[in-house]
Amino acid sequence: MDNSTAEKGSPGQEQQAAGVGILLQIMMLVLSFVVGHVLRRHKFYYLPEASASLLIGLIVGGLANISDTERSIRAWFNFHEEFFFLFLLPPIIFQSGFSLSPKPFFSNFGAIVTFAIFGTFIASVVTGVLVYLGGLMYLMYKLPFVECLMFGALISATDPVTVLSIFQELGTDMNLYALVFGESVLNDAMAISLYRTMSVVRSNDPSGQNFFMVIVRFLETFVGSMSAGVGVGFTSNLFKYAGLDIDNLQNLECCLFVLFPYFSYMLAEGLGLSGIVSILFTGIVMKHYTFSNLSENSQHFVSDFFHLISSLAETFIFIYMGFDIAMEKHSWSHVGFIFFSILFIAIARAVNVFSCAYLINLVRPAHRQIPSKHQKALCYSGLRGAMAFALALQSVHDLQEGHGQIIFTATTAIVVLTVLLIGGSTGTMLEALQVVGDGHDAHLGEGFEGNNGYVPTSHEEDETTGNKLRMKLKEFHRSAASFSEIDRNYLTPFFTSQNGDSEDEEDDPMPSSRRGVYHGHS
Amino acid sequence: MDNSTAEKGSPGQEQQAAGVGILLQIMMLVLSFVVGHVLRRHKFYYLPEASASLLIGLIVGGLANISDTERSIRAWFNFHEEFFFLFLLPPIIFQSGFSLSPKPFFSNFGAIVTFAIFGTFIASVVTGVLVYLGGLMYLMYKLPFVECLMFGALISATDPVTVLSIFQELGTDMNLYALVFGESVLNDAMAISLYRTMSVVRSNDPSGQNFFMVIVRFLETFVGSMSAGVGVGFTSNLFKYAGLDIDNLQNLECCLFVLFPYFSYMLAEGLGLSGIVSILFTGIVMKHYTFSNLSENSQHFVSDFFHLISSLAETFIFIYMGFDIAMEKHSWSHVGFIFFSILFIAIARAVNVFSCAYLINLVRPAHRQIPSKHQKALCYSGLRGAMAFALALQSVHDLQEGHGQIIFTATTAIVVLTVLLIGGSTGTMLEALQVVGDGHDAHLGEGFEGNNGYVPTSHEEDETTGNKLRMKLKEFHRSAASFSEIDRNYLTPFFTSQNGDSEDEEDDPMPSSRRGVYHGHS
Repeated sequence: MDNSTAEKGSPGQEQQAAGVGILLQIMMLVLSFVVGHVLRRHKFYYLPEASASLLIGLIVGGLANISDTERSIRAWFNFHEEFFFLFLLPPIIFQSGFSLSPKPFFSNFGAIVTFAIFGTFIASVVTGVLVYLGGLMYLMYKLPFVECLMFGALISATDPVTVLSIFQELGTDMNLYALVFGESVLNDAMAISLYRTMSVVRSNDPSGQNFFMVIVRFLETFVGSMSAGVGVGFTSNLFKYAGLDIDNLQNLECCLFVLFPYFSYMLAEGLGLSGIVSILFTGIVMKHYTFSNLSENSQHFVSDFFHLISSLAETFIFIYMGFDIAMEKHSWSHVGFIFFSILFIAIARAVNVFSCAYLINLVRPAHRQIPSKHQKALCYSGLRGAMAFALALQSVHDLQEGHGQIIFTATTAIVVLTVLLIGGSTGTMLEALQVVGDGHDAHLGEGFEGNNGYVPTSHEEDETTGNKLRMKLKEFHRSAASFSEIDRNYLTPFFTSQNGDSEDEEDDPMPSSRRGVYHGHS
Repeated sequence: MDNSTAEKGSPGQEQQAAGVGILLQIMMLVLSFVVGHVLRRHKFYYLPEASASLLIGLIVGGLANISDTERSIRAWFNFHEEFFFLFLLPPIIFQSGFSLSPKPFFSNFGAIVTFAIFGTFIASVVTGVLVYLGGLMYLMYKLPFVECLMFGALISATDPVTVLSIFQELGTDMNLYALVFGESVLNDAMAISLYRTMSVVRSNDPSGQNFFMVIVRFLETFVGSMSAGVGVGFTSNLFKYAGLDIDNLQNLECCLFVLFPYFSYMLAEGLGLSGIVSILFTGIVMKHYTFSNLSENSQHFVSDFFHLISSLAETFIFIYMGFDIAMEKHSWSHVGFIFFSILFIAIARAVNVFSCAYLINLVRPAHRQIPSKHQKALCYSGLRGAMAFALALQSVHDLQEGHGQIIFTATTAIVVLTVLLIGGSTGTMLEALQVVGDGHDAHLGEGFEGNNGYVPTSHEEDETTGNKLRMKLKEFHRSAASFSEIDRNYLTPFFTSQNGDSEDEEDDPMPSSRRGVYHGHS
């Protein structure tokens, strides 16, 4: 930013331009909120809020392009990946973790992790390989293999915002919701880790990649970030001993509580790990343990606060993206690349979902199989959003010879198409698959609670494939179950106040329902 | 920022540096909050929170300087005036207007405006002229006259944060509080307007300044900004008709409510007016009218929200300033300049306060005179803070030949000295002047309520000077009184809900006492 001060004109003028730029952004934000509200009130699901925001950004950006707005004002609308990653993304991911209802999430944790880690890996590799093969066969522009993998990684980040808001609105099966939600959040983290790993591989030795090192490096990042996040989350329990839950210290308490997630994110980033994974787990831990140590007023306040901040950030991201897409230079000459990559990501998505679902169903008891219609819904929900866009924008800086530009244009096209088409048709899809507000969830939910230990006794059919893998996964499930015992018996009493508040909290099956998040179910 | 992407290394590294930088900032913030809390709990008033934050910033900055921290991390600590003016200042000023208890403020409005506008003008001119004369007499470095006036303007911005927190803590006379508070907030706006006006004058015709045009231009800015602020504030009353006070729309309601102040600020800035004045009046209007149209939950939430955001911004400003002071290059060769300017601003402050108080006492009835000890307290409370610092930093860009550098160094020294010395001794001063928590306020408060019309009958002594001015000021008071009638009879019923909520709000003498702001009085 030091350079920018050197080139600017009078500081008053510069500040005036900033004022106009931000004013426009605020007006678009207000417009998006109002339009989104009106659409929701009239139950018009063909244009969800995110799509509306994207369209508003596109339209205003187009108008600004035509009307030849001054450069200094337009500068306020360039999508900066840094701003996105450091300021817009953290509140959204934290809110995801914080508003997570832990039961369906943790009872599906194995499946979610499988989809997010293994599935995203498959999707990235399949996309990358297909794009590379497409290049070899002269179907599309030929990129080097590692750049194909980078494209595969960045385009495999599905967006949680749009589909989930529709899911919440219509009220769908809670397990399906948990799957889609968990997958889209964790898969962002996976995609960004994969992308960065590939980026490092590319800059270090562009010819021969040590595949094994990639995996190790990724696991390092993932486990490290998760530990950092959980660690910061537990550290935030110092609240319990600070004695800040007196009424006139509420502000101090809230200040500290609000700073912790951000601390976690920056700690992970500062260590070269993944801030997203870290802040997600901080959110989960803080909701589960720290939250109940706050005074009641602060509890209300911080939930509303994170909700507010994340909605603002979410809406802003889509506007910002729309505006930037309308303003940015694109290389539309590679229409073939765009067309085939859309085809390839659809294939990769299907391979990802159905193969992972197959693996998961191998180890799940009969009554907990992921039904085929859920698999289809999950497959359909893979729209690409801001994360793919931000990574693509980064690739413009990372890759030379216009390769980044091609990837960016293709990603832009994919984002706009999927947000508008998939976002608009999710309601119809859910109705067609008959997963809207059925009673399925209650039954399964109860099933989980009683069955928390996953005693693997009666389901010994289908022994043919993946027996070893199955044993591994079962072991994982068992360890998850024993974790929940440790949690009940040791962690919760240790980290939360002993005055019985935490018990109430535990008994409440869905603490976030107050804010209407899952109102289809409560 | 576009340039900065070109020069940076690997994006991963850049992001890591950002992570470390922000991590440090968060840690300093947390440290400041904790230190401030501990100091307050032990009633140690010699180091108020703002001073502690400044010291923390200075120390960490010094350490970073010694330990040769990497440039990319240090870049995160440069004080950017743009960031200050666009993101840190608005929440603080809005919170000032929003948390204002309207009765003492409006009953002292005439006095406050006199101090803020006329007084700041006097102080700026006196400082400017003295610095110019000092230059002519070779006491100090000789600056051109208009630059002396710019320095006078920027150094006349007193800081509301530190002194007020002490006042609140110790609980002082409410009228004194209103005076100090109102003066320091409005005088920031005045100082920035004066500075910019001078800056425009300087760049247009540096030799002969049309003094009359300066005044007109300033009044234009001030009245325009105030109208914009009040206009946006009243526009925000559309809430009343939007019907958003249903429970599950709370988030939407809060989003819109939170965006309005910022809208007001950016509107004024975009029009080339003063965002500070605008957002201050938006705050006052929104608290007075819009606030009561919110649902009860949202009311709690938005008060807490603005309080939180402004405390974060306040604390951050002092840390940020301290760090930047420790890192920035200073031209310490002009020690004479620093010494004499400290002397001159003390003189200017005394001239400002005592002359304005004399004028005000001319028109006030005998029982409402500003007592001599209040005048002394007001005179003493003129410490310089972030506003002066930010404007001085701007002057480095505005002025050539190292003049800006001299002004910046002098301002830095003045800020550090006044924040540490005045901030640390305010408690002692208040006790020495015996204005700590006396019963005075209750008496006066009641006196005002009964006496809202200011019937000017029995106080005809001292007819010698300023008779004409006195009539003018009385007229002003009378119009203020008639405004409060209009408010009661028309505006409040029109802009707030008719369900009696607003009445309750009116009867509560101090709505913000819940958050312990004035807990010395409640």
